[in-house]
Amino acid sequence: MPVKGGNVIADLVRNNRSYRRFYQEVAIGHDTLKALVDLARCCASAANLQPLKYLLSCQPDRNGLIFKHLAWAAYLKDWQGPPEGERPSAYIIVLGDRTIAKSFGCDHGIASQTILLGATEKGLGGCMIGAVRRQELREALGIAKHLDILLVLALGKPKETVVLEGLGPDRDVKYWRDSQDVHHVPKRCLDEVIVP
Amino acid sequence: MPVKGGNVIADLVRNNRSYRRFYQEVAIGHDTLKALVDLARCCASAANLQPLKYLLSCQPDRNGLIFKHLAWAAYLKDWQGPPEGERPSAYIIVLGDRTIAKSFGCDHGIASQTILLGATEKGLGGCMIGAVRRQELREALGIAKHLDILLVLALGKPKETVVLEGLGPDRDVKYWRDSQDVHHVPKRCLDEVIVP
Repeated sequence: MPVKGGNVIADLVRNNRSYRRFYQEVAIGHDTLKALVDLARCCASAANLQPLKYLLSCQPDRNGLIFKHLAWAAYLKDWQGPPEGERPSAYIIVLGDRTIAKSFGCDHGIASQTILLGATEKGLGGCMIGAVRRQELREALGIAKHLDILLVLALGKPKETVVLEGLGPDRDVKYWRDSQDVHHVPKRCLDEVIVP
Repeated sequence: MPVKGGNVIADLVRNNRSYRRFYQEVAIGHDTLKALVDLARCCASAANLQPLKYLLSCQPDRNGLIFKHLAWAAYLKDWQGPPEGERPSAYIIVLGDRTIAKSFGCDHGIASQTILLGATEKGLGGCMIGAVRRQELREALGIAKHLDILLVLALGKPKETVVLEGLGPDRDVKYWRDSQDVHHVPKRCLDEVIVP
């Protein structure tokens, strides 16, 4: 089988962790967000309907409106999300246009992963956030009713170390932070996810 | 904003088209499929539950069992799918384990896109197929009842040219093939998918 050189995807996938603390002072430009959406625009979509729309934010005031309607890291009970100074410097809100499709399958997963891999390549990182107070966010940003809020992608220059590790004897998948604030993420091993 | 060099993701995304005709004689090894699943294994998953499982196939007889339960390219009414000789040389069936999660969000989109980008880097290509006769496929392969069939990823060495283009005046998103068998895929432009 012909195999082209390079192992870029493996490195990007490994570096593309869910980051929740950022160098907030490192701004992300509107053009960068547009370039990331342009990647998503070219991706596969069920029946090629392309029902996804994207709302961009990279200005501090707008970022603040978004931030307060997000829930962060459900497993970290003692942490209420990044403090001022460590918050995302940009967001891409992934919307589903119900005038185009009734359901969105996994289109938003395809698009969001592509955006985050593109961000990783640029030295950025982020987190797909599904725990969103949707009605409040809709009102805060004036999002039209025909657009479902599917995911909020938080973006910034990562300010934390995230390590993958195997599941422990208790088989727990909850991520956790150690005393050095290193974020540990248990992942199932390859043998466990391949059906024999 | 610091931007790392390279534009690898943009090239991979552009080359990662939905291919439906392959050099069937170019085999894909089991180890290649495992390496692709290993990429997906390290991806984000809602609440880190990691409910996805993967069934691999790269042997002609097993491939044949899978092929006959797939529907191909709904918009190409005169084409019943690739003929013998142009069929996929491997499959990864993405399953959702209901003993781990009740729903799978867009985890399978994240995983499938990652697998296909990894395949593209290796000079391969494929197609995410959702139009599957699930019950028949389940029986043919003996897939356990607690595993939902989410997507079938067809893989092979692509044997067709796929081009992206803008939507025409009729705004139709249906892909089509020209007289040279070039596959044309209309994509919405960037301005259309960004909410102002």
